[in-house]
Amino acid sequence: MQVITRLPDYVQQRLDSFVAEQRTALTDLGEDFIPLIDQITEFLQGGKRIRAQFLALGFLAVQPITVADPDADEAFTRLIDAACALEMFHAAALIHDDLIDDSDTRRGKPSIHQFFSNRHDALHYRGSAQRFGAATAILAGDLLQSWADELMHRTLDQLRAIDASRARSYFNRMRTEVAIGQYLDVLEEQLPAFAPHQEQLERSTRVLIYKSAKYSVQAPLLIGAAMAGADDSQSRSLADFGLPVGVAFQLRDDVLGVFGDAHVTGKPAGDDLTEGKRTVLVTLAREKLPQTTQRLFDELHGSADLDEAQIEMLQRTIKDTGALDRVEHMISSNIGIGREALADANLDANAIQSLLRLADFVADRHS
Amino acid sequence: MQVITRLPDYVQQRLDSFVAEQRTALTDLGEDFIPLIDQITEFLQGGKRIRAQFLALGFLAVQPITVADPDADEAFTRLIDAACALEMFHAAALIHDDLIDDSDTRRGKPSIHQFFSNRHDALHYRGSAQRFGAATAILAGDLLQSWADELMHRTLDQLRAIDASRARSYFNRMRTEVAIGQYLDVLEEQLPAFAPHQEQLERSTRVLIYKSAKYSVQAPLLIGAAMAGADDSQSRSLADFGLPVGVAFQLRDDVLGVFGDAHVTGKPAGDDLTEGKRTVLVTLAREKLPQTTQRLFDELHGSADLDEAQIEMLQRTIKDTGALDRVEHMISSNIGIGREALADANLDANAIQSLLRLADFVADRHS
Repeated sequence: MQVITRLPDYVQQRLDSFVAEQRTALTDLGEDFIPLIDQITEFLQGGKRIRAQFLALGFLAVQPITVADPDADEAFTRLIDAACALEMFHAAALIHDDLIDDSDTRRGKPSIHQFFSNRHDALHYRGSAQRFGAATAILAGDLLQSWADELMHRTLDQLRAIDASRARSYFNRMRTEVAIGQYLDVLEEQLPAFAPHQEQLERSTRVLIYKSAKYSVQAPLLIGAAMAGADDSQSRSLADFGLPVGVAFQLRDDVLGVFGDAHVTGKPAGDDLTEGKRTVLVTLAREKLPQTTQRLFDELHGSADLDEAQIEMLQRTIKDTGALDRVEHMISSNIGIGREALADANLDANAIQSLLRLADFVADRHS
Repeated sequence: MQVITRLPDYVQQRLDSFVAEQRTALTDLGEDFIPLIDQITEFLQGGKRIRAQFLALGFLAVQPITVADPDADEAFTRLIDAACALEMFHAAALIHDDLIDDSDTRRGKPSIHQFFSNRHDALHYRGSAQRFGAATAILAGDLLQSWADELMHRTLDQLRAIDASRARSYFNRMRTEVAIGQYLDVLEEQLPAFAPHQEQLERSTRVLIYKSAKYSVQAPLLIGAAMAGADDSQSRSLADFGLPVGVAFQLRDDVLGVFGDAHVTGKPAGDDLTEGKRTVLVTLAREKLPQTTQRLFDELHGSADLDEAQIEMLQRTIKDTGALDRVEHMISSNIGIGREALADANLDANAIQSLLRLADFVADRHS
């Protein structure tokens, strides 16, 4: 499946050309905004393109594009455009997320708010560097969100009305659910204490599903499939595959948030611990602790100033409770459920193979 | 023109019903997000509905809706939906703007970030109340931006493809330009000093045009007109009317930002002075000051902790330079230019009357 191997390149080219178009359209506004566009361009480089790939595979599973097809070019262009729209939406979400979480780095480089805050210092601007950084990150995210909408709708406008309308409704639902999911995630960190175990597990699972599983995997698949004119059974198979794979994706994220190698993730080690994220992993670990250890755990978890030894201690505690093993088991079992969902699916066999490979990748990645 | 008089009511009803629809669609996500939706609902109450009115009048100027028309209901529903989309987009922009400007109040009530920061305190959440407020405001704005996009495209999908496509392209351009305009506005406040007069005036005018004149008046008119199938000459007339009226609108805003009555505007007195906004009004005033006074002016302008006497002193200074008179003159003359643009326009006469009344209103308002 040549298309999928080269997808990241195609996506990158299209993102670059889209931003270049916008820059040209803005010529009347002078030059002062160029640093903003430059940083957005930079931010749009790289990344794993998970959402682009799931969208593309959702499409190709329903409507394989072969070179022989006279409409191949057109179909392919639409697929790349929609994939780029999701990637821009995601970039917008990450820029805002970094600001919300006060994360200074993203993929080993300064986050947008940090970059503009540094720039404020370097250029001896007046007022607060931090506030300028925050303002710029808010506006950069807003701009990218608008661009994502623009490119998505421009693309969908070229489809059959019924396909466009279904793709739109998945896109809309995804946007609303991810914003609410993020709010629930932020709220969770603020609540004075963990809820009783079962309730906490439900709450953490809800955040995981809406903030991530649906958003990162299931929705992109369904948008792609709708664009290709999927019938109900095809959409159902992809939805049944996408949700557990999305769960596995986020559970892996939770593991990396605690145990990830900073050099590979591009984020500080134990990020989720200093942020006090009440992930499924942490919730499962906490349940197994005797009460006194639990109290100590709760005190450390979410302290912004954890030192290396404290982070290691928390990591070890989580491992010793067996929670890490349980989560690893949950990841495999969710991937298994996803695999099942595609077993008898009425979808292209090549695309299914690529989907299974991608599922394994998101479940086993190191960053 | 019954429709226009009752427009704010129709818009309010539709906004309420749209948010209620979304709330229902989110039932699976539990109850924790309800305070967020409640605050969004509250935030969507009231306001002047300037953009909704210009959109509606842009539409009606091209395609008057009469009760006799068998499609009147449908056309009217579309018009209200698109107007609501603009109002939601605007609400999103205001929520983010309040956060960027660190404004605690909006229409005399706590801004969204302030509300959730207060809530954090009241409920004894852990972590930083201020950061929770900021996070919620960012997400509330993102959510409203998505909703605006959803409602706009849902509406445009029901139009002739050519009309929809033109309306979309105005909507897209508007969103990009306003984000860049806001960035330029924020940047302007950070630059260490005023630029030389002529350059500063150009810079301040550019911000005024992109952040406000086009966004608040010209773009809504053009979107409405495109939806109604405007021909080139009709669009040109509305564009030629909309730009100067938009300039007058923002110049009035600048006057209110310095001289407005806090009880009427719902914002602190002299807001633009404490924020150090380099508006056209301030730039014109500053130019007329002798160098020593100018230095004092620059020191005070943009100090967050100005007391009442200092604000009054700055207000008096601005008045004494004659800048207030000049801006008042610019407002009238822009309204005059707008009026001219409609003189021979091929647009509905009733709509033209309403447009002229609305232009006078935005130029003379007190809040």
